[in-house]
Amino acid sequence: MTQSESIVESLMAKGESIDILVVEDNDEERDSIVKLLQESIGGVRIVSVRDGSEALDFLFARGNWVERVDEEPPKLILLDLELSGSEGGLSILGKIRLVEPQDALTVVPIVVFTDSHDADNIKDSYRLGANSYVIKPLSFPDFKSVVESVGKYWMTLNESSRE
Amino acid sequence: MTQSESIVESLMAKGESIDILVVEDNDEERDSIVKLLQESIGGVRIVSVRDGSEALDFLFARGNWVERVDEEPPKLILLDLELSGSEGGLSILGKIRLVEPQDALTVVPIVVFTDSHDADNIKDSYRLGANSYVIKPLSFPDFKSVVESVGKYWMTLNESSRE
Repeated sequence: MTQSESIVESLMAKGESIDILVVEDNDEERDSIVKLLQESIGGVRIVSVRDGSEALDFLFARGNWVERVDEEPPKLILLDLELSGSEGGLSILGKIRLVEPQDALTVVPIVVFTDSHDADNIKDSYRLGANSYVIKPLSFPDFKSVVESVGKYWMTLNESSRE
Repeated sequence: MTQSESIVESLMAKGESIDILVVEDNDEERDSIVKLLQESIGGVRIVSVRDGSEALDFLFARGNWVERVDEEPPKLILLDLELSGSEGGLSILGKIRLVEPQDALTVVPIVVFTDSHDADNIKDSYRLGANSYVIKPLSFPDFKSVVESVGKYWMTLNESSRE
């Protein structure tokens, strides 16, 4: 995503809280996840970012996202683990959960969505505060079904904490 | 559940790890949850308890559950908030998550399954370490559908941490 595309996406969120933040560095997968969620959840508001530093800018209302100050956090963060750049998924998890205890970010559901079957990644994700760990299926029909199920679970069954 | 019924249930788990611990003080709802999960997830191994102190005995291998020492924790805990006795759901959440950081119990997914829509209960549940908060639907068809969806999500899509 170029800087200008990022700014176009930020217009989606101006003045309204968003539902899902998708953090995924693979362009094809990121577009696919957003499209599948939009098609399966009516009216869902999604912002997607391709790397960890932009995810943190979004969540902490910095950089391109400075206008989000005082906006509510998303109801769900879908987080890839292997991200390009200096901020990997585990690093982001740590930074989200180590904010002040009263910060609403401490209780936003985070679903790790990754290729990794590694037992240490699974354990570390939970220890750093992930709510759920879901492995990306290899085939597109399974990928579609899993993304839709994850979206449906967290957006319709789960209650997120609202101030 | 009488003491003898509790012991009969404990036989289910002897020598094998279990999948789901259901903590629910309403007899009818507890039976219904167990039945719906068993019907919708092939081969699932469930232990259900009616109060908080027995839930803690199960998880910490004490009392009737002393033979569970060294067994793996369940892959999912389904936890009612309003329990009879001195241990409410929030108290249990705190005790599970405040074990030593290396204890496998720190990373067992816990889904709060409750009648309560109270914003403080939702926030406190997440702050005490619940992975998810799901409100019990009032009608049986909806209750059935939600229990099945919760079971399917956590037992088939989510990866729990295994030692």
